[in-house]
Amino acid sequence: MREEKLTVQGFRAAAVKGGIRGKDRLDIGLIVSDVPAVAAGVFTTSLVKAAPVLLDMARLRAGQARALVVNAGIANACTGELGMANALAVGRMTAEALGLVEDEVLLASTGVIGAQLDLACFQRAVPAAVARLYGEGFAEVSRAMMTTDTVPKVARRTVMLDGKPVELLGLAKGAGMIMPNMATMLAFVMTDACVASAAVLQPMLKSGVEKSFNRITIDGDTSTNDSVLLLANGLAANTPLTDDSPGRAEFAVALDELLLDLAMQIVADGEGATKLITIRVLGAATAEEAQQAARTIANSPLVKTAFFGEDANWGRIIGALGRSGAGFDANQVSIAFDDVVMVQGGLGMGPEVEARATEVLKRKRFTVTVDIHAGSAAGEYYTCDFSIDYVKINADYRS
Amino acid sequence: MREEKLTVQGFRAAAVKGGIRGKDRLDIGLIVSDVPAVAAGVFTTSLVKAAPVLLDMARLRAGQARALVVNAGIANACTGELGMANALAVGRMTAEALGLVEDEVLLASTGVIGAQLDLACFQRAVPAAVARLYGEGFAEVSRAMMTTDTVPKVARRTVMLDGKPVELLGLAKGAGMIMPNMATMLAFVMTDACVASAAVLQPMLKSGVEKSFNRITIDGDTSTNDSVLLLANGLAANTPLTDDSPGRAEFAVALDELLLDLAMQIVADGEGATKLITIRVLGAATAEEAQQAARTIANSPLVKTAFFGEDANWGRIIGALGRSGAGFDANQVSIAFDDVVMVQGGLGMGPEVEARATEVLKRKRFTVTVDIHAGSAAGEYYTCDFSIDYVKINADYRS
Repeated sequence: MREEKLTVQGFRAAAVKGGIRGKDRLDIGLIVSDVPAVAAGVFTTSLVKAAPVLLDMARLRAGQARALVVNAGIANACTGELGMANALAVGRMTAEALGLVEDEVLLASTGVIGAQLDLACFQRAVPAAVARLYGEGFAEVSRAMMTTDTVPKVARRTVMLDGKPVELLGLAKGAGMIMPNMATMLAFVMTDACVASAAVLQPMLKSGVEKSFNRITIDGDTSTNDSVLLLANGLAANTPLTDDSPGRAEFAVALDELLLDLAMQIVADGEGATKLITIRVLGAATAEEAQQAARTIANSPLVKTAFFGEDANWGRIIGALGRSGAGFDANQVSIAFDDVVMVQGGLGMGPEVEARATEVLKRKRFTVTVDIHAGSAAGEYYTCDFSIDYVKINADYRS
Repeated sequence: MREEKLTVQGFRAAAVKGGIRGKDRLDIGLIVSDVPAVAAGVFTTSLVKAAPVLLDMARLRAGQARALVVNAGIANACTGELGMANALAVGRMTAEALGLVEDEVLLASTGVIGAQLDLACFQRAVPAAVARLYGEGFAEVSRAMMTTDTVPKVARRTVMLDGKPVELLGLAKGAGMIMPNMATMLAFVMTDACVASAAVLQPMLKSGVEKSFNRITIDGDTSTNDSVLLLANGLAANTPLTDDSPGRAEFAVALDELLLDLAMQIVADGEGATKLITIRVLGAATAEEAQQAARTIANSPLVKTAFFGEDANWGRIIGALGRSGAGFDANQVSIAFDDVVMVQGGLGMGPEVEARATEVLKRKRFTVTVDIHAGSAAGEYYTCDFSIDYVKINADYRS
């Protein structure tokens, strides 16, 4: 994590040890905007949605929020009516402690599915977190929301709107159940941008998520709790952004970059991951096929274990490509590992080139470019390798 | 492997050390029918098909075959014109050594993608295999076709047609790149049944594959070489089977059972696998959704690592279910591990039940039954756990 000052005008944050994950771990975080913020959210596409996700989806219809309370350890998913009652109670005690209306509080949970929250933890922790709120509290919130993550994920951007500096600050957590259609478990973005309404903010967030969290995969599993929340409190005092504002494009670019930055941090810290790999597919007939081909390669356990083994096994890449559903001629495929073109016209370039490709695989980050010569569309996906530690982590997760 | 006598009237087989995989491993196998056999085949749905697959698909249009030559070590996939020329040459030398017409020889290869066959290996090995052909040679062929398999896979069935015993003998190999849409790398079935034509045989094979090899997964990867070949030489002298024969159903049942037997052996010997798990989905709106839900659960790395860790983590099962595309109400789901019902109405049944479910997970074989209460359709998938050894095997495969 970068140790720069993590603040955004008009936002305060804090994290406390709530006792959900033992006595000595930060596990409850709170983020508060001093003034009502325009709010947007993108959530898991899973049919099974956790209680906090269902609650946030309903509350975001109002298009604004003031506070966000997050816990790690228990996902509050598959918890039925009691789970929803508990989520409502956590929101209510947070609103009371902050003097807010209940509907202004958003919730996020991550952890084990099927377990119920213990409200006693929150009864102690929420007032303590409120008492602790401070402008630089985001670093501790980024740690409180970690589960199998090994590092907290934070990103910042600044963009000038009407000559005024606008800050964006993002926090995210991985590191398992990471797949397209809401990839990350949780990401929060705070900005002091003035945005006219949620109707303006929501499509920007959705578009940014599409190009970041929806292009990463660690294990092909979509979670019940995936949420990206964006709060814009307007304190930068720029002219309110609308769909037609001259500054909209600049703000959207900064938001896209920030979301992609967080997404890449999640992949790089994927469970057991040792490498971050970009899979770029060129020459597809359609953008959908390009994306589908990139995703299939990025999710293949055989490709990912070969990356772990630093084995330039391009046959596995072509194997995944062949079943991806994208249309192409097997005799027209070329594959490059960074700048080493290893396959041309569907054929390997021999042992000398393979030796150079193997060197590329030893890097911590590299790009696999697959040109299928069937059209002009391109697609990209970000993935990590599949290591022995991935299995160890997930065979032991609950114990 | 069962040590019963592996023979079928009118078929002979042999395997030799061809030198493709070092000096001391059987790697080339040959199966020959004494008389022309009605032949059927089902092949990979991958867009990238190996040379032997393309050759067999063309040759099977004639609906008959006499011989089958298989090699391990090199897949002859992604090998271009030279790969096809090599496949034709292997077929030609086999035909010459056996005194057959070239088109009567089928080929199968398994191993590394992108490498070319060395014809010198076959020039030595094919005559040696022909010289060695004998009725009980199938056991050695089943060993010659192994790659990362730890045991050969063999199955037998006998069915009475017109009061005459008809034998079916099947050989198969796994153990990686195993996924739906032609699951196994290779399976061969020999029978002395008299079948009127390939038009009768082919739909029976296709239907049997649908219910066996297309319901197993080890790693979600479909191979470039997947082939199931069936040869029926007619020497049982039953009345030729047609679509309307009274014996057709009995033969089809025996064939289905044999294919499922082989498919289960492949899953049980999946790379690094320690358990064989049946995922049964009940109460789906359609058979497609049931199958889709079962497949998604069966392919989830998080579910499979939990099985390896013997962790009754039903949250991961619901997680996979939620993203499967099947329609259901999360509050209506029940999940049982063998006879232990662990989840009802979408909620866990508590620690005591979980302890009993954990005992089930210690078994080598068990069934996870998921009832989604959205209809009356059912589906089934067979999978294995995802172990540390899976990663070790695949990070090292080529080296």
